[in-house]
Amino acid sequence: MELLTDDQITAELNESPGWALANGEITRTFTRQDFKDAFLLVGAVAFLAEEAGHHPDIDIRWNKVKLTLSTHSAGGLTAADFALARRISALPGPG
Amino acid sequence: MELLTDDQITAELNESPGWALANGEITRTFTRQDFKDAFLLVGAVAFLAEEAGHHPDIDIRWNKVKLTLSTHSAGGLTAADFALARRISALPGPG
Repeated sequence: MELLTDDQITAELNESPGWALANGEITRTFTRQDFKDAFLLVGAVAFLAEEAGHHPDIDIRWNKVKLTLSTHSAGGLTAADFALARRISALPGPG
Repeated sequence: MELLTDDQITAELNESPGWALANGEITRTFTRQDFKDAFLLVGAVAFLAEEAGHHPDIDIRWNKVKLTLSTHSAGGLTAADFALARRISALPGPG
């Protein structure tokens, strides 16, 4: 996996509403109705992550789920991060 | 829920191997074989949390699950935190 250039990161972010750059990673926080709903979302994220062979950091705070993506093996952001980010964003509901 | 005194916290920690005090909360990190195993552990933790009506902060880092407990409504540690901590520690496997 090759690291993306700043121009490529900008282009990818433009196609990934809700995701923000922070400390060389991309992050997005989803707010659900309660803990149960948040946990169900994490289940879907876990499934997509396993399918992709790529796993976000997942922080659960009752009804909030913060996801953080980068490609540790490459030392930064790659196409794999944005591919998974968009697959997660395409789930029904996460707003 | 009443806040525990320092003496009570000390006594509870003595009965809760693996859990550590940090910034007025208690925390423990479990390491499993891989992400799938870590996620299964989170499922059990989520069930116990719902049953208790008390929810830890849950941070998933691939095969590591960091749990952090405090009673936000009381502004610190209460008996509820240690009760849930011990219930989680009593799950088979988490070592």
